[in-house]
Amino acid sequence: MNTSEVRIVEVGPRDGLQNEKTLLPPDIKIALIDRLSSTGLKTIETTSFVSPRWVPQLADAAEVFHRIRKVPGVGYPVLVPNEQGYRIAREAGANEVSVFTAASEAFNRANINASIAESLQRFRPVLEEAKAEGVKVRGYVSTALGCPYQGEVPVADVVKVAKQLYEMGCYEVSVADTIGVGTPAKARAMLHAVAQEIPMHALAVHFHDTYGQALANILACLEEGVRVVDSAVSGTGGCPYAKGATGNVASEDVVYMLHGMGMQTGINLDMLVATGAWLSTQLNKPTASRVTKARTTADT
Amino acid sequence: MNTSEVRIVEVGPRDGLQNEKTLLPPDIKIALIDRLSSTGLKTIETTSFVSPRWVPQLADAAEVFHRIRKVPGVGYPVLVPNEQGYRIAREAGANEVSVFTAASEAFNRANINASIAESLQRFRPVLEEAKAEGVKVRGYVSTALGCPYQGEVPVADVVKVAKQLYEMGCYEVSVADTIGVGTPAKARAMLHAVAQEIPMHALAVHFHDTYGQALANILACLEEGVRVVDSAVSGTGGCPYAKGATGNVASEDVVYMLHGMGMQTGINLDMLVATGAWLSTQLNKPTASRVTKARTTADT
Repeated sequence: MNTSEVRIVEVGPRDGLQNEKTLLPPDIKIALIDRLSSTGLKTIETTSFVSPRWVPQLADAAEVFHRIRKVPGVGYPVLVPNEQGYRIAREAGANEVSVFTAASEAFNRANINASIAESLQRFRPVLEEAKAEGVKVRGYVSTALGCPYQGEVPVADVVKVAKQLYEMGCYEVSVADTIGVGTPAKARAMLHAVAQEIPMHALAVHFHDTYGQALANILACLEEGVRVVDSAVSGTGGCPYAKGATGNVASEDVVYMLHGMGMQTGINLDMLVATGAWLSTQLNKPTASRVTKARTTADT
Repeated sequence: MNTSEVRIVEVGPRDGLQNEKTLLPPDIKIALIDRLSSTGLKTIETTSFVSPRWVPQLADAAEVFHRIRKVPGVGYPVLVPNEQGYRIAREAGANEVSVFTAASEAFNRANINASIAESLQRFRPVLEEAKAEGVKVRGYVSTALGCPYQGEVPVADVVKVAKQLYEMGCYEVSVADTIGVGTPAKARAMLHAVAQEIPMHALAVHFHDTYGQALANILACLEEGVRVVDSAVSGTGGCPYAKGATGNVASEDVVYMLHGMGMQTGINLDMLVATGAWLSTQLNKPTASRVTKARTTADT
């Protein structure tokens, strides 16, 4: 990968929407994903095959996955919690999946009622089947810069979990500041430590903007060498365990920064802004993207 | 100055409020400034001695300046547009003033109906009197990363204006992205160029968050060596000439980032957050500070 090329992993349809209170019908989600693939995005995390009891917003995972337009060259990973979820996702046609565990024991326990070791154990058959079937698996390490229950998360714990996911077969590991408390120097130091064990090209960063730090953190990580960034159009979402409830960093704001720095994403920013504005209308809430807000507000 | 020490120049009472539609009574502004000086802030731009016809919000400049508690060690600069404004400010007791001009001819013409050369000419007697009277003068160079009228602003133009202000006697020159369009690499390159002519310790950076880039730009400029940062509590303000109408970068978010990076500001963040939350109540609008939003939202 050229050093000035950055791949954006659009996580809005999954990580964004799963924490939005306004339930969207499948048609709107399908329209969202099809709009996103038209912008030039190459990876769109499409939905989650978890129990509808956990995530009512994504109860229509199979229908949505079936009906989206599959653009050649675009990846449509889906989140799976375990082997059963993996099989349902595969029946729905998914050929790329994501798995996630926390770097914080306290968070993992509270979030999915399992230890980190148990989580990883659950993924083992998923990774094995995926390998046998030629399915790509992306891994997330959540709470990589802080935990709402235990507070600080040692960098060594993040490295350990990330390394295990990579060794189990994940082609890419995304380190995630789930509650958005991180600041640039800590983000950079964490990424640097993880990159001692996993090649930088197999790493991604994932920031939430709860404390407004996301773009600065991304900048610090770009300087450290990362070239894959997760974001959500219109900045949807939020972590239900964090105060303030702000969501993922907005894709529009990330792309604006990258293009302004002369980096290439292959994304048409105008189309992305139009999609973000449209989504905020569907969710009946103001966009959290500053770029989309600036571009869609009438001259005063 | 120790390299890990950063001075925040709080511009909320002037640059922030002057673009807020809700007119605040003098008592509230005085309470705001007194709260700000209690947080540990060392520089608070207090008001502006311009014509009330231009800035109705600050028509009470003399009263506000008179009645604020003057904390020893805290600077209270006030903006002055010309020699007449300087004299009124001095009569009100000001012993530090600010002057500003744009780096863009088109903006200066539209904003104050004068060429840049004419603006600088107006400041010459101000700088001379200030020198004779031992009054410190701070200079702003606005539209340093873009102009709503002419678009791109050549870095050479920013350097030229900044250098003139410095040579005329400004002890500090703040380069300002008035419309918030800049991105980190451009911000850094601009600062680097200006620092070829003015010592870095005499430079400050001033970002608006219209496109969400402010903190990332500040990070890039800190890496380049700047140690003075302008910001406004609760992210008030906005440029009436820019779409989107978002304001200055929020002081709370800047301080959160700096402290998270192990830098010292001397500011009590909790008190700053409380002041930002209080101000947003007075202005009857949600805070634009992500930190204040996160810290003051109830657990969900």
